[in-house]
Parts: sequence; C-alpha cells; structure tokens
Amino acid sequence: MADSRITPRAQDFAAWYQDVVLKGDMAEPAEIVKGCMVIKPNGYAVWEALQRAFDDRFKATGHQNVYFPLLIPESFLKKEAEHVEGFAPELAVVTIAGGKELEEPYVIRPTSETIVGHFFAKWIHSYRDLPMLLNQWANVVRWELRTRMFLRTTEFLWQEGHTAHSTHAEAREEVLRILDIYAEVAEDLMAMPVIKGVKTKAEKFAGAFQSFSIEAMMQNGLALQAGTSHDLGQNFGRAFDVKFQTNEGKLDYVWQTSWGVSTRLIGGLIMTHSDDKGLVLPPKIAPVPVVLVPIYRKEEERSSVMEMAQKIGADLKCKLDTREGQSPGAKFFHWERRGVPIVLELGPRDVASGNVVMKRRDTGAKEIIPQSDLRVKIDATQSAMQTDLYQTAKQRLKQNYVTADSLSQVEDILRDVTAEKGGGKFVFAHIKDDPQCDARLKELKATVRCIPLVDEHDGPGKCIITGEPVDKRAVIAKAY
Amino acid sequence: MADSRITPRAQDFAAWYQDVVLKGDMAEPAEIVKGCMVIKPNGYAVWEALQRAFDDRFKATGHQNVYFPLLIPESFLKKEAEHVEGFAPELAVVTIAGGKELEEPYVIRPTSETIVGHFFAKWIHSYRDLPMLLNQWANVVRWELRTRMFLRTTEFLWQEGHTAHSTHAEAREEVLRILDIYAEVAEDLMAMPVIKGVKTKAEKFAGAFQSFSIEAMMQNGLALQAGTSHDLGQNFGRAFDVKFQTNEGKLDYVWQTSWGVSTRLIGGLIMTHSDDKGLVLPPKIAPVPVVLVPIYRKEEERSSVMEMAQKIGADLKCKLDTREGQSPGAKFFHWERRGVPIVLELGPRDVASGNVVMKRRDTGAKEIIPQSDLRVKIDATQSAMQTDLYQTAKQRLKQNYVTADSLSQVEDILRDVTAEKGGGKFVFAHIKDDPQCDARLKELKATVRCIPLVDEHDGPGKCIITGEPVDKRAVIAKAY
Repeated sequence: MADSRITPRAQDFAAWYQDVVLKGDMAEPAEIVKGCMVIKPNGYAVWEALQRAFDDRFKATGHQNVYFPLLIPESFLKKEAEHVEGFAPELAVVTIAGGKELEEPYVIRPTSETIVGHFFAKWIHSYRDLPMLLNQWANVVRWELRTRMFLRTTEFLWQEGHTAHSTHAEAREEVLRILDIYAEVAEDLMAMPVIKGVKTKAEKFAGAFQSFSIEAMMQNGLALQAGTSHDLGQNFGRAFDVKFQTNEGKLDYVWQTSWGVSTRLIGGLIMTHSDDKGLVLPPKIAPVPVVLVPIYRKEEERSSVMEMAQKIGADLKCKLDTREGQSPGAKFFHWERRGVPIVLELGPRDVASGNVVMKRRDTGAKEIIPQSDLRVKIDATQSAMQTDLYQTAKQRLKQNYVTADSLSQVEDILRDVTAEKGGGKFVFAHIKDDPQCDARLKELKATVRCIPLVDEHDGPGKCIITGEPVDKRAVIAKAY
Repeated sequence: MADSRITPRAQDFAAWYQDVVLKGDMAEPAEIVKGCMVIKPNGYAVWEALQRAFDDRFKATGHQNVYFPLLIPESFLKKEAEHVEGFAPELAVVTIAGGKELEEPYVIRPTSETIVGHFFAKWIHSYRDLPMLLNQWANVVRWELRTRMFLRTTEFLWQEGHTAHSTHAEAREEVLRILDIYAEVAEDLMAMPVIKGVKTKAEKFAGAFQSFSIEAMMQNGLALQAGTSHDLGQNFGRAFDVKFQTNEGKLDYVWQTSWGVSTRLIGGLIMTHSDDKGLVLPPKIAPVPVVLVPIYRKEEERSSVMEMAQKIGADLKCKLDTREGQSPGAKFFHWERRGVPIVLELGPRDVASGNVVMKRRDTGAKEIIPQSDLRVKIDATQSAMQTDLYQTAKQRLKQNYVTADSLSQVEDILRDVTAEKGGGKFVFAHIKDDPQCDARLKELKATVRCIPLVDEHDGPGKCIITGEPVDKRAVIAKAY
C-alpha cells in the first residue's frame, strides 16, 4: 500500500483494476480466507447507494424483504437435479457444530431457491396467497477457484428475489419487470449501458426454465454479466411440492422466479468509468458527491478561508476536508483516487474575489465559479458528468460491436483478447441455442453472453456452427 | 397457523410470545435448520426501521460501514485465550469446501473481533491512523442449545462496531457514547426503558477488559440484555499485534472497543408492549404506522367510499387496505395482530358526515374525527401513544424494583419466577464483583444483570454473599 502508483490500463488492465480497487479504498483481498475480500468504507458506501436504489424499486413494485437462514440442509439441494449439479462443486459444508459432528451436514447457501421452496410449500395453499413477492439482502458463499475482488469472490453480498405466481405468464412478466429495474439502475444511476437478453440453455441458472441477464462491456472489451432474472417455471414448485388451489378449484404447482444483483456490480462500475488516476464514480451513485478543500499557506489566511469554507460547506451540505497535516495537493490526490465527482478548492484569493475553483473528476476540467452560482453550477456539472459518462461508455460499447458470419471469424476476433491486454469485442453472430454450440465456443474461451431481447442487427440467419436457421444474432464475447 | 388463538399472557407468557410472533407475521421457526428462524415481512420491516435509526446515529458520530468475511480461520480464535474459551462451544465449523477437505477449517463468525484484529494490524501504523471507527451489518452464528425466536437463535442479524484508539480514555468515551446511542434508540424509538450498567467480570464479553450493557424488563419481569458495548482494553491489540507509533514516537498497542445490537431487540420490543390481542408497535418504529380500511356493504356505496378513501390515503400517505374478499372485521383483526398503531375506518356514514373513525392500537379507544383534522389528530395520537407506551413500561419497571439485603431474600423473591409464569423482579442488592458470587447466583438461576452507572438507591453496603463492602447495589434478575 506504500507504493502509490496505479498501473496504466494500457500496460495491464487487470493490474490496473486491482490498483484502482485498493487505492480507491474500495476493498482489499482477505488473503487468510480463500478468495474473500474486505469491503472497505468507500466500497461499502457505493454498495449502500446501490442497495437503496434497488430496494426502493423492489418495494415500489410490491416486494417485501424477508430473511431466510444462511445454512441449508445438504439434502435440500439434491431435490432439484440440475440445481445440485450446478452448485455441488462450489459448496462450503458445515460438518461440525456446537462441538459435535452433525448427523446431516449443512451447506452455506450458494443461493436460496431450495430453502425458499421449502417455505413456499408451507405458506402457499391457494391462488389467494399469490403472487408472493419476496426479496432478501444477504451474503452467499460459492467456492470459486479463480477470484477477483468484487467480480468473483468466494463470499459476496447480494439481493435475491424469490416470487411465486399462479400463471406462467405472470411469472414471465415479473422476470422482465425485474430485468428492466436492473437495466434502469445500471444505465441511469451507474451510467453503465447494458444489453438485456436471454441466456442460452447451457448458460442458464442451474434449475431454471429460462434465464435473462443484463450484460455490460468493460473498458477492456470483456463482458460482465451484471444481473440475472430467472424464470424457474414449475421446476422448484415440483421439487418442493409447492401446490396451490387455482380459482377453478384445481391443484397446480406454482410458477416461480428468482433474480439477483450482487457486489459484482461495483466491479462493473469501476471497470466502466475509472481511469489511470484511479476511481471515477458517477454523481448519482457517489457516496461523497462533492468535497471542498480549503487552501491556505500562512496562518493569517487560515481563519478567513476556514470561515468561508464552513459557510459554503453548510450551504451545499458537502464534505469539508479540514484534515490537519495534509497538503492541499495530497488532499486532491486522495479524493481523485476515491472517484469524488466534484472537488472544490477555496484559497485566500477566492475568498477575496468571491469565487470557488471547481474541478470535475472525469474530464479534469477546472472552472472558476462565483460563489453565488455554485449550487446551480454543481447541479449542472453533476448532470453533465452523469450524461457524459454514460455516453462515453455507450459509444465504447457500440464501437466494439462487430458481426461475424463464421466460427473462424469469431475466433480471429477474440483470439488475443485477455483481461490483461484487453481488445475485447461483442461479436454478434447467429448461433443455435444448443449446448453443443456453446461447447465449441468454450474451446475459444468465449461464451454466448445473451440473445438480445431487441435485435439491433439483421434478423434471421444461419448458425455459424450447425448452419441451421436462427432467429437473430447472439452476443459472443470473452467475459469475467 | 390455522388456529388463530393467541394464548393469554397470564396463562403462559412464553406461549403468548410465540403466538404473537407467529400471528404478527414477524418470524417463524425454521425447524429444518436447528435453532434458526425465517424473519417474515413484518419482522424484517421492524429490523429495517431499527437499522436506519442506529445507522444514522453511527454515521453522525463518525463511523463508517465495512464488511469483513463470514469465515474465520479456526486458529484466529485461539489467539485470545478468554475469547476462544467463551466461543469454542458454540462454533459452526466448515471442514469441506469446493469438494475437498480443508487443511485448516474455517469457523462461521460468532463475532468478528479476531478477523478485525488481523486487519487492524495491517491498517494501523501511526496515531494518525487513529481513531479507526468501523461498523458492519452482518449475520453471525452461535450454536445455542435452547433457542427462542428473536431472543436467542443459532443465526442472528446484528451490527458489530469495531474501533481502535490511541488512549484508553478515548476508547472508554467511545464505549459510553455507543451505550448512550443504544439507550436512546431503545427508549425514544422503541419506548423500551433500559438500565445502563457495567457487567460483572463473570458476565463480561469473552476477551473484553470490561463490558457495558443496556438491560430491559419484559412484561413477565425477566431481564433482557438488549445491547452491549465492550471496552476491549489492549487485549486484542496484543493478541493480533496491533501496534502504532504514538505522537511521542513510542510504540504502543491500540485500545479497542466493540459493540452490538441484534435482531434480539425485536423480541424485546414485542415483550415490552404487546398484549393478548397480538403485537403492539410504537409509532416511531412501526413499519406501517396508519392503515385506512374502507367499509361498504352494498355495491352502490362502493364508489363514494373508495373515492374518499383514495383521497384520504393520498393526503396522509398511508396504507389503504382495499383487499377484495375480506370483511372489514377480518381486516381490523389482521392489522391489530400486526401491531399497526392507528387504524382508520371509513364507511358510507363517515363519507356523508365528513368524518373518519380512528382506533388506537394500545388502548383500543375509538374516536370520530372530522377529516379536516385528521393529520393533526393522527400526529397527536401517535405522539401520545409513543409517550404512553414508554410510561407504562417505565412504571412496570419501577414497580418491579425490589431491594434485598441477603441472599435468602433474593432467593425468596426469584424462586418461582419463570419465563412462562412470569413474576420476575429486578432485585437491587449489594454484591461483590467476583465470579464466585456470580456462581452462587447461578444456583438460583439468577444473574447479576449489571451494576447500574447511576445509583438510584442507597449507595454503599455489604455484599450479600461475602459481607465485604460494595459501592452500590447491582441488578439481579432471571433473564433471557
């Protein structure tokens, strides 16, 4: 941590990311707990801002928060065949508790569909009990081999929604409603453009009927799955015997959904906007949107500068950096790395002239603003920065769209792409939704990210692997 | 759950508590995970209200939220001798992960002092790094033999503050500042009077130098430890080698504190105010403070009642119960059990007369209010209910204060007290802070709850066990 250098993106994007996370006080690897991290104050504050944004929207659409146990009887996971197959290799298992070997081990939840299924069976009896719209904010554990802070950690924080419905149509509406909420927060608050789409059968959630995701593009061109919303069909309803009486008096299994976003989003936020100087945070999600740094060299300047700084700080309700023993330069450096969107400087000359110097994090542009215009100028600058960050990211995304009409083309485009060197593209190609096709792409270390809901390309075509007709192009990329 | 009866308190207080929790949609035992519960929507909403209240106050006093890993290397707990002795019997241990036996098992955090100590040693080097004021909202697991929903569960949700300071005096200030915050939220928001005091050596946190707590009295007279704030001295600083350079250039170990409140508070809230009809929630902490129930029998009454209900609901920003297929009586019953402080009734006659009927949950009093006065009347009623709930609880507490000047007196007073039958008292007696004295009380199934910070009794006296001089009376009680 004594080394204060940030590796430039062009040199090694993966090292740059790690540096930005560390120097931005976002997180730190917890090397003594395999694949885990400590989320530090600046990182946790971003998570709180995201939590508020999502939680408000979940509540506005009728969801209620609840909390299910961390530990799940091992046998529960086995009730849905695909589910256990998907998660078994990643489980952390509690075998000893209270000083005794347990008769049946518990797994730490990797996700909660199974325990929710158990309780849905107790709670749901009639169509009058439906829809049941629940969400929980929780930690989960998945034993991952290769981990990166925020992007893939053994333990992570997330929200998981779990809902039950009386018809498949209603469940699908829910799945898409949530996907829209995910996209809205990603685009409007995080300024991170995303593509909404359907996952292939090979890439869907273990146990789902169909999975949807939002996919973002990082500055190295790699894809990041930033949120998923699953149509579970009646799979878990059958596995946990969640039956209800329909309004025609028949018995049917409920139609379920589940959906989640996690602390991974913070990794996406960082890799979408940050630069070689460190973190860049969009104003709408920045824990500290504005900081005022008072500047004085001589002791006799101190009181007039501090007095004015206090006044401005109180007017703007912004953070004042009055730390002693730190030079103004060190303070600017400090806030720059933490991604604070706007830093204000107030020196003796500014006090005399009634101005403040405003510096914008993304462009580095400095402007001298009359104190009387400050509130208006800050609002406008925040708004401009939010829009510009989104537009820059959107342009980058579009510029890295390519189409391919053969597997060898896909291979050529993605061959040299790595997380370190970058150069990633979103390759739009026709490919059949067939696990054998996904398997061929795996050989290129690429995946179908999604089949976009809205086709921005040329409609139907022939599968680049089987030659069979396919509705529209899918997004193929290397991904985190 | 089909049985809708709530056991009266006088018949069996423990059964009453369980009934209130279940019928109030607060929680439900998760029988398939030993000693765990599912926190249901109404219970989780109360937890969210408490979280906001505490979190605002922690942030206002300079604390930052962070997140440390759930899993802790088993060896960490052994570094502080008292700590491991206290927690070893309650640990849940992960021995298998990712399909393999682990070389060193992990324990699920029962509390985070050890892992925090490890990181403090990495982060703290100089007095300039101090104070370090951190908090985390998290789940913890302690394998308990006897569990009760909210009051003692294998897994529970809490916040745990962890701070490091350069002097003992500053650490003690912090410990007491937090104890004041705990007492303020308990008394002002939860309307639950508490006694602030010091724990005896036998009852302090495992590894602490000294522990402080707030102690509340439940309606059965049993004590509930509702929050604890620990002066850890330099114990964990030594165990984890957290050294810093003082401003005189010497090396010293940091002085640490830790403090927590948990979902247990919800149990305290329930057992302080609720009645034989179900939950009673103080207005300041009620997730749904006001509900309006429109009443109509004939279809021609419907539109005028609903129109007025919508208008009032929008004005007051209150919840409207427009559920179809439920009688008004069923709706009143529903909200009563959920502890909603104020329920408004609006029928055709009220529409005609421009009135609303207001019912207050704690007293059951009904009042006819002109619609134009509604906002003012609701505010006044909420305020009166908040004060009355506190005063009632405070009176109960004071009425159940007794003094004792011998061990046999203590025994007589507490002999027949149980969680089921009630009859509990706070017995004020002089008793030496000596584990042997605590051990004698244990034989009576009683404990020293705390030595109050403020002596409301008669100052010094002789220990009821050893006869030695003691500063002031301690609180002895049976407790949860």
